[in-house]
Amino acid sequence: MRIGIIGGGSTGLLYAYYLNQTFSVTIYTRTTLQAEKINAEGLFLKKGEQLSNLFVKAVPFDNWKGKEEITIVTVKQYQLENVLLKLQNKDIKGSTFLFLQNGMGHIKHLDKLSAKNILVGSIEHGAYRNSPNMVTHNGEGVTRVAIFRGQQEFLNDFVDAVPSSFPIVIEPDYYEMLVRKLIVNAVINPMTAILRIQNGELINNPHYYEIFQNVFSEIIEILNLKNKDDYFNNLIQVCEKTAQNRSSMLKDLESNRETEVDAILGFLLAKAEKDHIHSPLIRTFYQLIKGKEWEGING
Amino acid sequence: MRIGIIGGGSTGLLYAYYLNQTFSVTIYTRTTLQAEKINAEGLFLKKGEQLSNLFVKAVPFDNWKGKEEITIVTVKQYQLENVLLKLQNKDIKGSTFLFLQNGMGHIKHLDKLSAKNILVGSIEHGAYRNSPNMVTHNGEGVTRVAIFRGQQEFLNDFVDAVPSSFPIVIEPDYYEMLVRKLIVNAVINPMTAILRIQNGELINNPHYYEIFQNVFSEIIEILNLKNKDDYFNNLIQVCEKTAQNRSSMLKDLESNRETEVDAILGFLLAKAEKDHIHSPLIRTFYQLIKGKEWEGING
Repeated sequence: MRIGIIGGGSTGLLYAYYLNQTFSVTIYTRTTLQAEKINAEGLFLKKGEQLSNLFVKAVPFDNWKGKEEITIVTVKQYQLENVLLKLQNKDIKGSTFLFLQNGMGHIKHLDKLSAKNILVGSIEHGAYRNSPNMVTHNGEGVTRVAIFRGQQEFLNDFVDAVPSSFPIVIEPDYYEMLVRKLIVNAVINPMTAILRIQNGELINNPHYYEIFQNVFSEIIEILNLKNKDDYFNNLIQVCEKTAQNRSSMLKDLESNRETEVDAILGFLLAKAEKDHIHSPLIRTFYQLIKGKEWEGING
Repeated sequence: MRIGIIGGGSTGLLYAYYLNQTFSVTIYTRTTLQAEKINAEGLFLKKGEQLSNLFVKAVPFDNWKGKEEITIVTVKQYQLENVLLKLQNKDIKGSTFLFLQNGMGHIKHLDKLSAKNILVGSIEHGAYRNSPNMVTHNGEGVTRVAIFRGQQEFLNDFVDAVPSSFPIVIEPDYYEMLVRKLIVNAVINPMTAILRIQNGELINNPHYYEIFQNVFSEIIEILNLKNKDDYFNNLIQVCEKTAQNRSSMLKDLESNRETEVDAILGFLLAKAEKDHIHSPLIRTFYQLIKGKEWEGING
């Protein structure tokens, strides 16, 4: 089976490396330069002390035809619009798409796609891109995948064919899965990024923990969720498990990169506004992060 | 006329240096060591490139008798309780006290004092303490003073006798004066301390400016103030005039010192709670600062 991977960031490279072991992968990159480098030198994966290399076909995304059976879209939420425009102009009725974005901003666009099967996923790996053709896999995890539209059998076959070193777990309810991840990202990322702290500090420091709970409560109200305790316990567990980690948003700000705040807090704010829900803390953290991004550009 | 100055921090040293030029000043320090150093070497003032030195009498606060005609209390709000306990045990009926604390937390204690004249002041100087007997005067300003209780004539005489290089301006309404300063401190200090930015960024960065306005609105509601525009214009003016400055709270956090957040946001929160006013941003910035202080102690 052929798999196309759109996006040559850390997630795209990581998926290309692992999935190429059991599938025929083509990775579609934004720049011609990156595609040339991958085609010439292959793709490198660093894991602990070990550096591995394999050949993966790379093609600039401009030349994407959408002929693979499965296409995995790994670009960030804020780059998704360009990709979706291109998807709408292709005949993709017979194919399967898996979207791996953080947040939930992408969900509203998926109904417009003509693809037979649409899957959404949530990544629990830690990875960062060292260079255009090298990725470090520094946190082993799973990919959770759920059906947005389409057939269960297809998903089962896909999951069975994935290498065991890179497991995919099927989740029954895509909305529940994405909400769970969204809550984790919406509470942990902005606070740790503004305070420049490791994830565990949010629950160890009694002052931060009060804000943490208040932000969580605003999210529960915006999303009108019933099983509040389940989501809270999951959030605490993630903080405990990743206590020593520095969040992606903190790293983004430190590197003067655009963050995913629009996909995360921006999504929540838009929903709050639509439903006339007052959410002062979400609004404040959104502006604190946007202000830091603005500093990075104008400072 | 004899003046006693309680507190050997930057404000205490600054006032001792200038007022000793026209009054007979005794400075009361927390430690015996600081008093000994001042008595042995004199007090140094640094201003621009110039370093000046003069002798001022210094006595440990434990030996304070309260015999001076005017006593200026320069300790921080969070050190005030100890000083007030001592004041209540002395015969101070005939004397005058000037309180120079930030915030408004001290006002509720002043009614209990037996002193004939009680003044409150608001400092617009920039100063920092280089060593136990050296202070740098790096921002020329005025001291605004208003009567909390007592005679106008006495204040006029005092102001006339102050050296012209260290002016005191009489304000008609102590509450209005302190509120004005409180608003400035409550909006500028916590935001700049958490974001690690200069004061001017708060009005230049459109994202920070939104939060700035929201924090201001919560304060206006808590203090139930009518002339909102006057206070806002004053706040903006201070931001513009001190655009390149880093706030005292930012410096306190960077130096792992306790901040004045309790006197500033803590005072507002207590009032909000008493009056059942919801003030989520003030509460959040209070906890952000307390969390940073907690990091400094436990981190």
